[in-house]
Amino acid sequence: MIPRKTALSPGSPAPKPRSNAAPDNALAAELTRLLGPKKVLSALSERLSYRYDAIQFGETPLAVVLPESTADVVTAVQTARAAGVPIVGRGAASGLSGGAAPMQPGLVISFTRMTRLEVFPERREARAQAGVVTLSVTEMARPYGLLYPPDPASFRTSTIGGNLGENAGGPMCFKYGVTGDYVKSLEFVDAEGEVYEVGRGAYDLAGLLIGSEGTLGLITEATLRLTPPPKFTRTLMASFAEVGACAEAVSAAIAAGAVPSKLEFMDQACTRAVEDYLHLGLPVDAGAVLLVDTDGDDLDTVEEERALVEAACVEAGGTVRRASSDAESAALWQARRSVSPALGRIRPQRMNEDIVVPRSVLPDVVREIRALGDASGFPVVQFGHIGDGNLHPNILFDPRRESADAVHELAHQIAAVAIRHGGVLSGEHGIGTMKRPFMREAVDPVTLDVLWNVKRALDPAERLNPGKVLP
Amino acid sequence: MIPRKTALSPGSPAPKPRSNAAPDNALAAELTRLLGPKKVLSALSERLSYRYDAIQFGETPLAVVLPESTADVVTAVQTARAAGVPIVGRGAASGLSGGAAPMQPGLVISFTRMTRLEVFPERREARAQAGVVTLSVTEMARPYGLLYPPDPASFRTSTIGGNLGENAGGPMCFKYGVTGDYVKSLEFVDAEGEVYEVGRGAYDLAGLLIGSEGTLGLITEATLRLTPPPKFTRTLMASFAEVGACAEAVSAAIAAGAVPSKLEFMDQACTRAVEDYLHLGLPVDAGAVLLVDTDGDDLDTVEEERALVEAACVEAGGTVRRASSDAESAALWQARRSVSPALGRIRPQRMNEDIVVPRSVLPDVVREIRALGDASGFPVVQFGHIGDGNLHPNILFDPRRESADAVHELAHQIAAVAIRHGGVLSGEHGIGTMKRPFMREAVDPVTLDVLWNVKRALDPAERLNPGKVLP
Repeated sequence: MIPRKTALSPGSPAPKPRSNAAPDNALAAELTRLLGPKKVLSALSERLSYRYDAIQFGETPLAVVLPESTADVVTAVQTARAAGVPIVGRGAASGLSGGAAPMQPGLVISFTRMTRLEVFPERREARAQAGVVTLSVTEMARPYGLLYPPDPASFRTSTIGGNLGENAGGPMCFKYGVTGDYVKSLEFVDAEGEVYEVGRGAYDLAGLLIGSEGTLGLITEATLRLTPPPKFTRTLMASFAEVGACAEAVSAAIAAGAVPSKLEFMDQACTRAVEDYLHLGLPVDAGAVLLVDTDGDDLDTVEEERALVEAACVEAGGTVRRASSDAESAALWQARRSVSPALGRIRPQRMNEDIVVPRSVLPDVVREIRALGDASGFPVVQFGHIGDGNLHPNILFDPRRESADAVHELAHQIAAVAIRHGGVLSGEHGIGTMKRPFMREAVDPVTLDVLWNVKRALDPAERLNPGKVLP
Repeated sequence: MIPRKTALSPGSPAPKPRSNAAPDNALAAELTRLLGPKKVLSALSERLSYRYDAIQFGETPLAVVLPESTADVVTAVQTARAAGVPIVGRGAASGLSGGAAPMQPGLVISFTRMTRLEVFPERREARAQAGVVTLSVTEMARPYGLLYPPDPASFRTSTIGGNLGENAGGPMCFKYGVTGDYVKSLEFVDAEGEVYEVGRGAYDLAGLLIGSEGTLGLITEATLRLTPPPKFTRTLMASFAEVGACAEAVSAAIAAGAVPSKLEFMDQACTRAVEDYLHLGLPVDAGAVLLVDTDGDDLDTVEEERALVEAACVEAGGTVRRASSDAESAALWQARRSVSPALGRIRPQRMNEDIVVPRSVLPDVVREIRALGDASGFPVVQFGHIGDGNLHPNILFDPRRESADAVHELAHQIAAVAIRHGGVLSGEHGIGTMKRPFMREAVDPVTLDVLWNVKRALDPAERLNPGKVLP
């Protein structure tokens, strides 16, 4: 969303269409000839909507294909290849790292029409095309007593293909694992238009594709693992004077044997933004608010785990509120789910980081980022999946009157805090364009060389989502 | 273990040592100069023991290094590289696919002295060097109320490095996942002697190394995820007139909502072999025997799950025996754990397959393999992790009087049954040399090309464990 455009490479001149019809657009014309007009968007007014994801503007694509089958994807890839233009895959574009925003004019393949979904209850599997909305998998599995655990915040709109591309996590990933942990096999189309179906065997090509943000291949379908849902869930909220106490409570609860299914944290700035927005009665004077779910099939065990968490919170000086009903639990979680819209009311745009640090250094990391934010003059809020140390510092800004360079500088300083404390840059949103400039600090040059070798092994002409992940 | 030697490539002449001292062995001499005599085995009598794993003979190595640190591994790799010889990593050599058996004379790096192991209870992690024995991880974690779930049958002797190389499974993997699911990060040394520490982020290099049998790099250390053990475990054994009924019972129990932690099956030939060996009172007239554990933190739920399995078994015509004590449960599991030694009493050698097929086709697959075995004249037994369709057909033979070609032909026919029914060749033992000849039927040529591209991206000179995995 920070409109800093990458300089175009000499071989890919930007198109200068004069009208919606773009009569000089040979790529769109050829795709329309091969796929028919219903599957190809060539008018500028339509293409403009495919230049960004939820956080970043990119280049307007030369053409957009809306495939209805893997065969359509193959045709699109082969046509783009013949035209020598890059290819970017796109799901619901709800990603927060710029993964689906094209960095060069080229072809965007939007998977939203590939929505075939089948559930095989006896095998506890679902087979989903890339455009299936994440939540639909659980909705179709529920009558069979099954659930698809990965729950990115955007799961009502995000697609399985997008989740796979970014290896998306969510609150439940602390206990249940991320998207990649639920993939048994997948189908993808490579840069030449070849189709592969790969399982998770020796040379885990599927695992390599997952999280590679469309830079190694375009995932068209996947077989997903389903699980029975827990019978019982219990929720508590705890507030602390200071974030350090909150992090200590979490560590102590986990060390005592609790395995909460969700462990979410919001700092004071974040809690106040949500309270201003929704008036839920949140503790706005607290330095940190913790939201915890425990779940399982036995109510005594679930409540015992909640009691362990509660004892650890009280021991660390926190004030605890137990949800006494499903409705109260839903209200508490509404606070966490409303962070994004609440922040949008403070500034029109935000730079959303996704660092992961060891839990033991969380208090220091949160404090250092707080100090950087205060010194910068930008509103900075922090929240995230504290159970696995996945923190989302957000810099809020107004691009009409605030400098993108200053935002980038602050984002870079925040990333440096994570790296200095032994952390990594991306927990669940991917690297995309947002964190790509920091990759040189996070990954040593020798490892980067090998990653580039792997990239070229699958995409020698570097035509798949150029400008992402690898610097 | 079938002593069919690969033809040597012209560039790697076999050494012809005349004495134990091998005075013409420049590689061993240079390694001894760099690492000292205690870390290098150069005498033929010592090297002979490093030419095989638990199932396959290979070539006698020119030298064996017993590194005590990653730095020693780097020195060994650089020396072998300068000498232009291949490198094979080796743990306890308990593998069942030939992964650690050298296919060309070269350097074997045996990790058994790299046994540093640390447990970090607050992070629920262990850091293990490659030579740590699998069971030691759980033993060191137990005082902290933690466990390392992957449980290959050989876990009392196998090493973490070997488990990672083969992405080993075990009975618990149906509910808890395989080795790779418990790896948070790992350190490896590449073919040039560079050292990498990689997590599980975008471009999952760690995931690529896991299960690659030392063909992409040598894993030297790993950070492993630990979990709290279940509080309660319950066991039952069921016997069926026919294997089809056994497979139906398993499918019905899983569809009814049971998630057993272990689900093991033995056919009649296998049951009889174990009974002849141990006299446990096993039902030798049954066509199939099923062993099931359910586990969890709540006894009612664990017993309810066992009841679901029991009902499904009875419904399918089975006879059920519940273990009434931990001792009885241990006795029942002793039957399954004793399969390997029991088979060794029938014939001195065996070819152990590791196919995985959809549960729905298990009855057909078991029957077809039974028929192939009967027609061949070789004793063939079948057992395995029926919960996820991982079957181990074993061909028993005596290499002194039976033809290795006939064994290979039968093994090939059995692999073809799996592939024809939509299965794969390796569930948990790896591809190694044993199943490498069948890879062309299991993996299409285009995918094989990409796998070779990935291999060359990491090991361009093809110096790491040549002759494994990829045909």
